[in-house]
Amino acid sequence: MPVDGVRLLHDLHALREFGRYKTGVHRPTYSPQDVHSRHWLATRMAEAGLEASIDGIGNVIGRGRGDGPVLLLGSHSETQSHAGWLDGALGVIYGLEVARTLGRGVDVVAWADEEGHFGSFLGSRSFCGLVDDAELDAARSRENDTRLRDALQAAGFAGQPRATIDPARYRGYLEAHIEQGQELEISGRRIGVVTAIVGSRQFRIVFEGVQNHAGTTRMKNRRDAGVALVRLASAIDRRFPEVAGPLTVWTTGRITLAPGAPSIVPGHAEMLFQFRDTDPVLLDVLEQELEALVAEAAKGPCRVSLVRGSRTAPRPMDEGFQSALEGAAQRHVPGLHMRMPSGAGHDAQILASRIPAGMLFVPSIGGISHHWAEDTAEADIVLGCEVFCDAAAQILSRAC
Amino acid sequence: MPVDGVRLLHDLHALREFGRYKTGVHRPTYSPQDVHSRHWLATRMAEAGLEASIDGIGNVIGRGRGDGPVLLLGSHSETQSHAGWLDGALGVIYGLEVARTLGRGVDVVAWADEEGHFGSFLGSRSFCGLVDDAELDAARSRENDTRLRDALQAAGFAGQPRATIDPARYRGYLEAHIEQGQELEISGRRIGVVTAIVGSRQFRIVFEGVQNHAGTTRMKNRRDAGVALVRLASAIDRRFPEVAGPLTVWTTGRITLAPGAPSIVPGHAEMLFQFRDTDPVLLDVLEQELEALVAEAAKGPCRVSLVRGSRTAPRPMDEGFQSALEGAAQRHVPGLHMRMPSGAGHDAQILASRIPAGMLFVPSIGGISHHWAEDTAEADIVLGCEVFCDAAAQILSRAC
Repeated sequence: MPVDGVRLLHDLHALREFGRYKTGVHRPTYSPQDVHSRHWLATRMAEAGLEASIDGIGNVIGRGRGDGPVLLLGSHSETQSHAGWLDGALGVIYGLEVARTLGRGVDVVAWADEEGHFGSFLGSRSFCGLVDDAELDAARSRENDTRLRDALQAAGFAGQPRATIDPARYRGYLEAHIEQGQELEISGRRIGVVTAIVGSRQFRIVFEGVQNHAGTTRMKNRRDAGVALVRLASAIDRRFPEVAGPLTVWTTGRITLAPGAPSIVPGHAEMLFQFRDTDPVLLDVLEQELEALVAEAAKGPCRVSLVRGSRTAPRPMDEGFQSALEGAAQRHVPGLHMRMPSGAGHDAQILASRIPAGMLFVPSIGGISHHWAEDTAEADIVLGCEVFCDAAAQILSRAC
Repeated sequence: MPVDGVRLLHDLHALREFGRYKTGVHRPTYSPQDVHSRHWLATRMAEAGLEASIDGIGNVIGRGRGDGPVLLLGSHSETQSHAGWLDGALGVIYGLEVARTLGRGVDVVAWADEEGHFGSFLGSRSFCGLVDDAELDAARSRENDTRLRDALQAAGFAGQPRATIDPARYRGYLEAHIEQGQELEISGRRIGVVTAIVGSRQFRIVFEGVQNHAGTTRMKNRRDAGVALVRLASAIDRRFPEVAGPLTVWTTGRITLAPGAPSIVPGHAEMLFQFRDTDPVLLDVLEQELEALVAEAAKGPCRVSLVRGSRTAPRPMDEGFQSALEGAAQRHVPGLHMRMPSGAGHDAQILASRIPAGMLFVPSIGGISHHWAEDTAEADIVLGCEVFCDAAAQILSRAC
C-alpha cells in the first residue's frame, strides 16, 4: 500500500506555515506558533483515525488501533531559531502518513523541545521517565530566561498529565530525519540507514596566566594564557587525526581570551572542545589522549585545567530495524542507500534506552542544517517516506 | 639644589584623591574628578610661580620664567579605568617639583587623554598641531559613546583656545613615567633611560570558512575557520622567535570564533595581532614574515585576509637628553641604571615629532600596570625625581 506523496508534501508545507521564516521556519518550543502547530497536528492525527492528545510537556501523541505491540513513529515538531522546515517536521509527518497508509499498528508522536530551547530532548525524556519535577522547576529558556513552568502555563499544557511509556505496548520506535550532513549527497545515495547515534563528550579547557601590558612585558617574562591555548589547540589538531576513527569528529566551537584587548597579554583563556564517535572504547581513548595533551600543556608557564561538560553514550540502533530499513531501501532504490552513524543527537537515542529504535535519513541539500535554507529534494522526501512505510509494515508483519 | 621629597610625595598623594579607587585611581578624561584635578593642578602650578591655564582640550600648561629656551616637563594626568595612581601623575608632579626646585627655565604640562578615552594622545597631539576640528567632531568616548564635544562642554574647556607649540620656545621635552614592566626590578636597577619608544603595528586577521553542524560534518568536508586561525597563530608562535630581535614583543590579544557555540563548526574567525620594536627595518621584516605566513595559511580550505590597523613609527629619544639622564643617574646611583626602550606609547613620542625629547623610567613593583594595584617604592619615586631634576638642570645649563 503506497504512501500518498501529494498528501505528505501538502502536510509538510502546511506545517511550515506555523512560524514560516523565508523558506524556513522560526518555531521555538512553546512559542504561540509552536502551540498552534501542535493543536493542528493533534487534529490531523485525529483525522487519521488516531486517538490524539497533547500531554503536560507538549508531546502530541496519536494512539492507533492495533492488537499486538505497535510501532511508535515520529520526531520533534519545534525548530531551532530561524531554522529549516524539515528538521523534525519530516519525521512527524512521515509518522502521520504511515499511520494513514497502514491504518493500524502505529502510534504517532511529535516530541517537544528536542532542540533544547528549555532543556534537551525534554519531550522524549519525559515520555521515557527521565525528567523529574525538580528539572521542570529549574528549567528556563536559553533565549529569554522564561521559566519552563510559565511557558507551559501560557501554552495551556500545564494542567495535563505527562504521558509515560508503556514498553509492553511497543514493538519499537522508528524515526526519520534529514541527514544534516553531506555524506548522502556526496556519495550519490538517497537513503541512510542509521547504525548508531554517536556519543559525545564536551569539555571546557581553562588557561590561567598573568595579564600584562603587551608593550612593556618581554616575551621571556610572559605567562600568556592565549599562547598556551593556541599551543594546546594546535597539539590537538596534530594528534587527534592519528588516534581518531574514520568517522570521529572533533570541534573547538569557542575560544575566549580575557580581557580580549589588542594591547593586553591575555591572563585568562578558555576553549570549548568536543568530540563524537559511535565507539565507546574509542571515546575513552580520545579522552585519555586529551588528558595527556592537557598534562603536557600544563608543563608550560600557565595553569591548564580540563573541565568535563555534558557527555552522552553512543546508542546503537536495533539490528533488526536496520535490516528492515535496508531491505526496504534496496527494494525501492537498489544500491543507492548506505549504513551510516548519526553525528547529531535525536529523540531516537532517548527511546533506545527503553525500546528498540531505528532511524532513516534522507539527503540534505548541500548538508545545510539549522539554517532557514535547509532543504531536501521533493523526490527524496517522498522516496524516504515510501521506504519508511515499507520498513514499518515489514516490522509489524514480523511482530504479529 | 635638591628636590623636596616630602612635598613631592604629598602632591602625588593629594592628586590620588581625585577619583581614588582602592589604592589606585579611577579618573577617566573629562570625568568630574579629572576636571577637578586639572583645576587643582593649575592652582599648584600658579603657587609654584608658573603662569597656569587650561586650554581648549584640557591640557594644563604652566609657563615658567626664563630667558633662553626652556624645558617642557610633564606627562598626562587622567588615568585608565580603575587603574594606578602613578601612571601619568608621576611625570606631572615631577615637572611641578622640578619647576619649584629650579625656579626658572621650566614649563610644566599635564596632557589630556593620553590614555585614549576619546582618542589617543589627544592633548599632546593637539599641542603639536596634529588634531583638526573634524577629529574633535567625530570623537566619542570608548566607554559610553559620549561625544567629545559634549564632554569638553560639560568640563568647561570648550570655550578656550587650544594651545599649540612654539618650537622656538623649547629646548626640548622631558617626561618621567613608571616603567610598566619588570625589567628594572628583575635586574635590580632603579633608573631607566629610554632609548626609543617602540613602533607598533596592529593587524586584524580574518578567516572565512563554512559554518556547519559539529556532529554531522565529517572532518574531511570541513572548512573550519577556527582551525585555520589556530594553525596560523601556531605558525606565528613558532616563526616569530626566529626572526624577531631580542626586545621585540608580539601579542594576540583577542580571538573570536563565530557563531561561538559548542556544537557548531565556526564559519568565521578573527584574531587581533600586534608587534612592537624600536627598529623600523625589523618592523618591516616582521610584517613581511606575517604576510608570508598568512599567504601560506590561505592555501588551506579557508579564506584568510590580513587587515592592517593602527601603526606608529619608532621614536628615538634625543641622544643628548639620554646622556644627561644617564649622567645624572650615575651620580645618584652608580651602576644601578640602564638604557632601555619603552614598549608602551607615551606623549614623548608625539612631542619628539616637533622638539628633542627624552624619558626617564622608575621601577614598577611587580611590573603591574593599568591596574589599581600599580605602585612604585617611595624611595624610587624620590630618587627618580632627583635624577630627573639633575638632568633638567644640566640640560638647561648647557643651553644657556
